[in-house]
Amino acid sequence: MKTIIKNVKIITMDSNMNEIENGFIIIDGEKINFIGSMDQYKPIQDSEIIDGNGGILMPGMINTHTHLSMIPFRSLGDDCKDRLRRYLFPLENECMNKQLAYYSAKYAICEMLLSGVTTIMDMYYFEDEVAKAVEEMGIRAFLGETVINFPTCDSKEDFGGLEYGEKFIKKWKDHPLITPFIAPHAPNTNNTDSLIKANLISKKYNVPISIHLSEMDYELKYFKEEYNKTPIEYLESIGLLSDRLVAAHCIFLTDNDINLLKKYNVKVSHCIGSNTKAAKGVAPVSKMLKNNILVGLGTDGASSGNTLDIITQFKLFANFHKLENKDRSIFPAKDIIKLGTIIGAKVLNKEKEIGSIEIGKKADLVIIETKSVNMFPIFDPYSAIVYSANSSNVDTVFVNGKCVVKNKKLLNFDLETIRNDLKNNMKQFEEKAKEQLEKTNL
Amino acid sequence: MKTIIKNVKIITMDSNMNEIENGFIIIDGEKINFIGSMDQYKPIQDSEIIDGNGGILMPGMINTHTHLSMIPFRSLGDDCKDRLRRYLFPLENECMNKQLAYYSAKYAICEMLLSGVTTIMDMYYFEDEVAKAVEEMGIRAFLGETVINFPTCDSKEDFGGLEYGEKFIKKWKDHPLITPFIAPHAPNTNNTDSLIKANLISKKYNVPISIHLSEMDYELKYFKEEYNKTPIEYLESIGLLSDRLVAAHCIFLTDNDINLLKKYNVKVSHCIGSNTKAAKGVAPVSKMLKNNILVGLGTDGASSGNTLDIITQFKLFANFHKLENKDRSIFPAKDIIKLGTIIGAKVLNKEKEIGSIEIGKKADLVIIETKSVNMFPIFDPYSAIVYSANSSNVDTVFVNGKCVVKNKKLLNFDLETIRNDLKNNMKQFEEKAKEQLEKTNL
Repeated sequence: MKTIIKNVKIITMDSNMNEIENGFIIIDGEKINFIGSMDQYKPIQDSEIIDGNGGILMPGMINTHTHLSMIPFRSLGDDCKDRLRRYLFPLENECMNKQLAYYSAKYAICEMLLSGVTTIMDMYYFEDEVAKAVEEMGIRAFLGETVINFPTCDSKEDFGGLEYGEKFIKKWKDHPLITPFIAPHAPNTNNTDSLIKANLISKKYNVPISIHLSEMDYELKYFKEEYNKTPIEYLESIGLLSDRLVAAHCIFLTDNDINLLKKYNVKVSHCIGSNTKAAKGVAPVSKMLKNNILVGLGTDGASSGNTLDIITQFKLFANFHKLENKDRSIFPAKDIIKLGTIIGAKVLNKEKEIGSIEIGKKADLVIIETKSVNMFPIFDPYSAIVYSANSSNVDTVFVNGKCVVKNKKLLNFDLETIRNDLKNNMKQFEEKAKEQLEKTNL
Repeated sequence: MKTIIKNVKIITMDSNMNEIENGFIIIDGEKINFIGSMDQYKPIQDSEIIDGNGGILMPGMINTHTHLSMIPFRSLGDDCKDRLRRYLFPLENECMNKQLAYYSAKYAICEMLLSGVTTIMDMYYFEDEVAKAVEEMGIRAFLGETVINFPTCDSKEDFGGLEYGEKFIKKWKDHPLITPFIAPHAPNTNNTDSLIKANLISKKYNVPISIHLSEMDYELKYFKEEYNKTPIEYLESIGLLSDRLVAAHCIFLTDNDINLLKKYNVKVSHCIGSNTKAAKGVAPVSKMLKNNILVGLGTDGASSGNTLDIITQFKLFANFHKLENKDRSIFPAKDIIKLGTIIGAKVLNKEKEIGSIEIGKKADLVIIETKSVNMFPIFDPYSAIVYSANSSNVDTVFVNGKCVVKNKKLLNFDLETIRNDLKNNMKQFEEKAKEQLEKTNL
């Protein structure tokens, strides 16, 4: 059966940035089958029709860095200096388990879908559970098991993620919605051996490798002192830089770092909300783009960026990078939306399938409604999305040809049930969190 | 008749930052009559009961700088360098009129109320029309007619706002919801004489005076070249600094400027969204607060800040000021919400009536619902509002004891009708805007 979406302003985000003022599209199975203006519109028998009511039809948004299962940490110790040591590590080690990872991932996927995110790149623990959640909920996902130099919630051994990760890749590599990958946590939380092994796994299975990179001041200090190198120079020296690498954050970059990212065609996930809330810095995105480095957008986990929608990142991106460059005209809204759609797809090497509205591409689609009070007037649909919209304006979402959100509600799932399931699995976590809060006495 | 709001987590924002985990309040007429815990709760005969369903009850938010009637400019030429000259001035002069000012103000008030803003400080033209809209819609408002050195949409004379403004103040000064004031546009768009006259009006009627100050690079340059002074030093030299002055923006401040603001008890409206989107800068708020200068939050107009809600400003404030100070622990969420509530009230010299939930204060109240996907879990209600919420989480709003928003809808008005009224009055504006867009060829 075909699906028609009609009465929408289409921003295709294709290479010509084609737009249709009042258009419709036809979805056939997983794919976009036709794109036209309403002048050409004729109903098709036995098709489902969705009336966009003058909303904006855009490609599904792509979140290139997140940690789905970290939902339980949201709003916990946000303004605390020593947050990682006080909250994240102890709670992760004591309270994160299979069930919690699974139910948290389900909840996080609800948030992604409801906010128009149709593809995610996730790295965390218990990725088999996350994959199960992804499969049930029907989002497109890149999932990577974390490799780190200490025992974790899902491994008694240091670097246990290498073994878990390789098994995980084998198990999921042919799934239609899931691309597995390997995720060494960071250069300074691994050793040379584990990084090289992770890279070999990525090479062997031809899957991405993702890592937190040039994010922490102590990370930079460590490599400066130990190797007289930047983290990126160090990764180059051990053969880690390649076009399979998606580097998250990349806040602190030297000119040579940028040259290296460019030379090896490394991809970057830029997490402006998370990076600025933590007072770390603003990654030099304009410099990277000038050097043809592909930069996508990421929300980071709910512990760091709090919300998982890309629309919030658009707005933060605009204001931070305009100010950073002292130029209100740099990064017009159009270019910012590219980062969260077609360039995000390129970061994930999936631009032939997703990231724009084109015939033959997968139908990952979002309708932004324009009836809410914040969405009038609209002289420029890109401006409206970047500067006026918030995640609540997402009305309808398709992933892989299937409608998953309609009238701002999950079509096949009950949010309250999923929240209650998560709540019931969060009891131990909550107790421990309250303990830590009392200790910190914020 | 009394109104009861029950089953809410109350953050009072009073001087002790009292909170009630599960509480209720009683509204009697315009005022808060009782605040208690649900343990003490007993129904009262003939009262209206609103069940908050576990939401967060907070004071109504205070927007200390805006231009209601600029709604038609939203999403027009956002990323254009020479925006003021290309769009704002020509469109204002040619197309802004009584009707458009009135219908735009009505629409803007819808957006304010729906996002939990219960008090605004507006400066623009046709303030009589704005006052009419305010009166009809039922928001608390400070309204100031603009004084500027050229003929405007509502005056054929230079500085016509002086005459209009004084009449306006006389007419509206005893209105229960409206406080009129006088609004010289900026130091560089007035002359010494008009500034002094405006200040005399403010003194004579004991009403506020508000001005755009230390906002533009050319403004600073002008006063440096003409007077070898900063704009603030210049205003001091002509007697403009006083505790009646609410200075919007104050981005570029010397230490002496800060001393002067402090000495004269000048109030500041900080517009982080507008200032950063325009790549101007980040006002030194932490320095101002350390000097006991009162700083409220403002959205600016829809032309500059795009959305008119204070929740968006909370998030932008957090990320920009944490980064600016290189400290994630500075401005904890609690302190940011103070700026948009009780400190905002102090900026407007209304802290005895509004800005916190206390017995005897006006019932300007907001319920933030916590059932939407972005609002779970909540370990800290302030964090949830600043980092997780967006304006769509505002469920219920009271102004002056009256419920104006319920279940996320205006209670007494139909948004679509108000939008259509505005649309119908925007035709000339739209044509001219499209003309300008074509010229600019963005």
